[in-house]
This record gives sequence, C-alpha cells and structure tokens, in this order.
Amino acid sequence: MKFGRISRESPDGQVARLVVVEPGQGRVIDLARAAALHARATFHATETAAVRMAQARFPGSMAQALATGSDLIAAAKTVIAGRFGDEASLPIGDVAWLSASDPPVLRDGLAFIGHIKGWHERMSREVPDALLQIPGFAKNSPVTVIGNGATVPWPGYIQYMDYELELGYVIGRQGSNLRPEDAMPYIFGLTLYNDFSGRDLQKNELAVGMGATKSKDFAHSIGPWITTLDEFDDLDAIPLEVRVNGQTWARGNSGGKLWTPAELVAYVSLGERIEPGDVIGSGTMGGGSALELNRQLEPGDVVELEAGGIGVLRNVMGQKQDGLWWPTKRQPFM
Amino acid sequence: MKFGRISRESPDGQVARLVVVEPGQGRVIDLARAAALHARATFHATETAAVRMAQARFPGSMAQALATGSDLIAAAKTVIAGRFGDEASLPIGDVAWLSASDPPVLRDGLAFIGHIKGWHERMSREVPDALLQIPGFAKNSPVTVIGNGATVPWPGYIQYMDYELELGYVIGRQGSNLRPEDAMPYIFGLTLYNDFSGRDLQKNELAVGMGATKSKDFAHSIGPWITTLDEFDDLDAIPLEVRVNGQTWARGNSGGKLWTPAELVAYVSLGERIEPGDVIGSGTMGGGSALELNRQLEPGDVVELEAGGIGVLRNVMGQKQDGLWWPTKRQPFM
Repeated sequence: MKFGRISRESPDGQVARLVVVEPGQGRVIDLARAAALHARATFHATETAAVRMAQARFPGSMAQALATGSDLIAAAKTVIAGRFGDEASLPIGDVAWLSASDPPVLRDGLAFIGHIKGWHERMSREVPDALLQIPGFAKNSPVTVIGNGATVPWPGYIQYMDYELELGYVIGRQGSNLRPEDAMPYIFGLTLYNDFSGRDLQKNELAVGMGATKSKDFAHSIGPWITTLDEFDDLDAIPLEVRVNGQTWARGNSGGKLWTPAELVAYVSLGERIEPGDVIGSGTMGGGSALELNRQLEPGDVVELEAGGIGVLRNVMGQKQDGLWWPTKRQPFM
Repeated sequence: MKFGRISRESPDGQVARLVVVEPGQGRVIDLARAAALHARATFHATETAAVRMAQARFPGSMAQALATGSDLIAAAKTVIAGRFGDEASLPIGDVAWLSASDPPVLRDGLAFIGHIKGWHERMSREVPDALLQIPGFAKNSPVTVIGNGATVPWPGYIQYMDYELELGYVIGRQGSNLRPEDAMPYIFGLTLYNDFSGRDLQKNELAVGMGATKSKDFAHSIGPWITTLDEFDDLDAIPLEVRVNGQTWARGNSGGKLWTPAELVAYVSLGERIEPGDVIGSGTMGGGSALELNRQLEPGDVVELEAGGIGVLRNVMGQKQDGLWWPTKRQPFM
C-alpha cells in the first residue's frame, strides 16, 4: 500500500491531506474524506462527528497519522473499500505533493560501501576506522523538507550543488533501545530521499566537527510517497536510478550496505526514541551523488530519483538566491 | 517575566501546563487556568468556551504557545493580573517541572573561546581554522529533553559522563535568512541548557564526521524556566556557575564569545527556518565542562547549573543502564 501527503485548498487556505496512492489506477484517495463518508454510511455518524473522527484518525500530518497506532493500514483499507474510495478520489496528475512525511526528527545514515569509498576519495579523506565501529548518521533540519514536484531553493552561498540518491526508512512506531532483531516492525515503509548537498561548504563543516549545517539544511526532498514494508521482497535488491534532465547519471541497487536497516534503526533508537513519522536516510547509494562522477547541478536542472516499488521523486533546481548574509572571518585567538 | 512548563495530573493522565514563574513570591501561575477564569469574569464566556480558548492561547507546549504570536507576554500579563493569577497559583516547591521548551529543533552552538581552547586541548585536537570562518553548531535530538529536577538517564555504553554549562536562546518567532542586525527580536528569552556528554564516545563520532549522536542524545536538560530577553541588561555579563554535590566546580560569565547571539541566530536561520520554541545552545562556557577540569561525573551526583537572572537547573545522575545492544565492528572493506 502507498501513502502520501498532498496540499488542497480549503476555506482556511492550503491544508495538508493524507492520501492513499494508487498509481496503477491513476488516482489518489483523500483518506479523511473517505473515512467521513464511511462513518456516515456505516455507523450513521452525524456529519460533524464523522468529519471530526476522520480528521483525528487520518490527519494531514503523516507523523500524527502514524502516531495513531499500528492499525493504520487496516483502517485505511476499510474506509477506501468500494464507493467511499471512489467518491474521495482525485486524479493523480492533478495533485500538489507535500513531503511524504513531516518527520519529527530527520536523520541520515551512511551505509553504502560504494558511496563511502567514492565520497572519501573525492574529498581526499581517508575512510576512518570509526565507520567500521558505529553506524554513522547525521541529524538534518526537518523544517526544510520538500516533496515531489517542488522547486529546490538554492541559497547563493552554495556554489557546488549536488543530489544524493537515498532510500528513506519511515518509522511507524515509538521505540527506544531496540535490538536489531526486533527493529524491523518499527519501519512502516520506504520512500525516496534526495539529500541535496552543497559540496563546497562541507570542508569547513567537517573541520568544525559538529555535523553538516548549511551544506545540507536548505532542502531535503522526501517522496513521492511511502510504500509500506510488506510490498518489498528484499531490501538489498531495490533497483535505484538517478536522472538529470532525462539522462541517466547513475544506476544501481540497494545492496552493499555496511549496516542493515535493522542495525541502523536499532542504533538510532539507543538512549533516545524513534517516533512515528521519523525518516532515517539509508545513506547514499554508491555512485548516487554527482560528486562521485565529478559533475554538478546547475539552476533549472531536473533531478529524478527512481526506486523499484516506490516510484519517481522529481525536483527542479531553483535559481540562486543572492544577497544573503554570510559571516565574516574572526581574528585568530590562539 | 519568567515562563515555564510543569506536569499536572488530570482525568486524562499527566498533562503539560504552561506557567508564569514568580520565584520571589514562591509560586507559579497556571496560565490556561488563569485565562479561563479571566475570560469567564471579563467577557462572560461560557465555561466550555473559556477553557477551549485558554488552552488554544496557552497550551502546555511552549513551542505552540510561542507560535501563537508576539503578544504572548502581554496576553499573559493580562490574564494573571489580580485575583485570576492568585486563584491559578501553585506553590513553586510542589511542582514537577518539564523541559522549559519542547523545541521543534534543538541546536547547540560553539561560541565561548575559553571552552573551544580547553576542549581541543583535552581532546588533543588542533583548533581548526574553520571555527573562525563559520559559527559552529550541532543539531541534537529534541526527543531527549528533560527538565529541572529530572533524573538523568545514563546509558551503560557511556563511561566518561560530563555536563556542559550553557545558556539556551529560546526562539520566539519564525524567521529565515536573517541578518545579525535584525536577529535579536527573534529571541524570546534565555534558559539554562545542560548538554550532558559521553566523552568516551566522542572520538569515534568525531572521526565519522556526521555530528555527535550517542555521545549527546540521551539527555538535554533545559530549564528551570525561560527568562524573557527584556530582563537582561548585558548578554555578555551573565554570571554562571556549576556545582556538583554542592561544591562549586566552575564559575564565570557569559562573556568571551567568538560569535554573538545575533550572529549565531542569523547563521542558523540561513537557508532554513527558526521556529517558535526552538532552543539554540550558546555553547559551553569556558571551564564549563568537567573534561576541562580533568574530572567526571558519577551515578548519583547532583549537578546544578546557575545563571544570574534565570535560576538553578538541578539534575541527579541516574544509575547506569546495562544490557543495551551495541554494534559489533565490521570487517574492513578497503
């Protein structure tokens, strides 16, 4: 099953709506609308109460929807069955997508051996032994998530713009101090994650040693939707591809990981808590960044990530935003 | 004015409540309760509507309360005036504190020259030139925030436990791409921030280069409350002190910063968005960590941070949690 988020007009302005996505039928189904119709017809709920319950169960926030509990898939199947789903349908070509999740915390792993090799070669850095000891992951700013179809803001302080082709593990349940053997049921589904990156800023940010900041936190594209975990046979054999302006720049699959998804999720949960709606990037596929190809993006480029079983996440690079403030260098103090 | 968050019992279980703190009078005032009483008496609102409006305006989430707009201080003053404040008061000694904010994003700067010197000396690292070029800051996991009086969870994989004495800048308004000269009105107030740290984990996490993870994301203590910005004359002259088991371990003030609060906030806002309720740590005061003193914390230790104009943030170190999973080292792949 596939779940996504779209933006719709309402008397209160644009509102986020949770949808079931049926690409084969060319439609999405507005879940809160279907649920209200279902409650009216099946339980004789009043119109006001039907809408109130439907919005509580299927809110426009994926994080809040997943937080309602592990029966989300079954509940969605029930309310979209038959005519309720038909009546709440919208043509898939007409919708304005939002980021597939609105993660409370957005993290990004580093698991693909091919990318670890390629990135360190290009950045002239040795692969640290520490990467063999602990699953590396970063925390990104969740306020900059964008969805399928969105234009990517390009802050003028970035010169070398890059994409990163990743899968996103979407968390469906609260969990803490998990062990890998127990971690998989905490993954609700998979999405695509384009972790756009300003390569020229990374050198200073790496030297500071506190994690990426302005090199990453301007656009995290997540979508086009989430495919639930039951639809994948093998998480190590998902075909992946990146295209720029229609040309294939890289092709591969989700194999060759230093840490399994279960190990990454378990490690992330240690001492803290994973929350419904959290997105954890798989890390970039080997060859899944332009840096590894010695290429870069230009304004106006169309970047498409594709994953078997999910779909295509498409974004257009915006124009450079000039006139932003940038810090001036301090005097040495030592 | 001082704002905080406490936990109270209700028929729905424990609920978070926003309070005005009056340490001099030994009391806190439950804002939603005062507002409902005020609306009943002043506007003749019905009881149901008075409670509904009061909870919308003064929710238990500091982030949501600050998100209601820049008139929060004035609105609070209005509803606690006279008998409404008295009737909604609780003795300050009886309350269970929550983290002073529930930040959508929790960031932590690195500004104090003294700490930068001391930390790099102890970690045997050179101070990188990059620290003179950009304001360093980290993103921490906001799900692990705790408040004044809370016991600090101690994951068993941490051996060398430390505190960090910091101020927390609490953001009051949404903002993006700010310039330093415009940034100060975006700071609602100041709180104390104890960024507990597992020093033995930092070496590997630094080598990975993606930011701190398990060395930091087990407990971020924020409180005891927030003092609004208007109550401070000089952000470079706030007296600071840390005590362990009643003994003073370090004393100093908030001067000697490489980047001003306005520069840090402006930099954080570049390309992304600061949100109401966000907390940005000032960075650790010079000498404000046990590492710099060649000391460490033990289970049961009582750690108190004190700041002039704010108060005391007190936490007790918990016992080590054994039996947690930890990753096993991978085979080298190069």
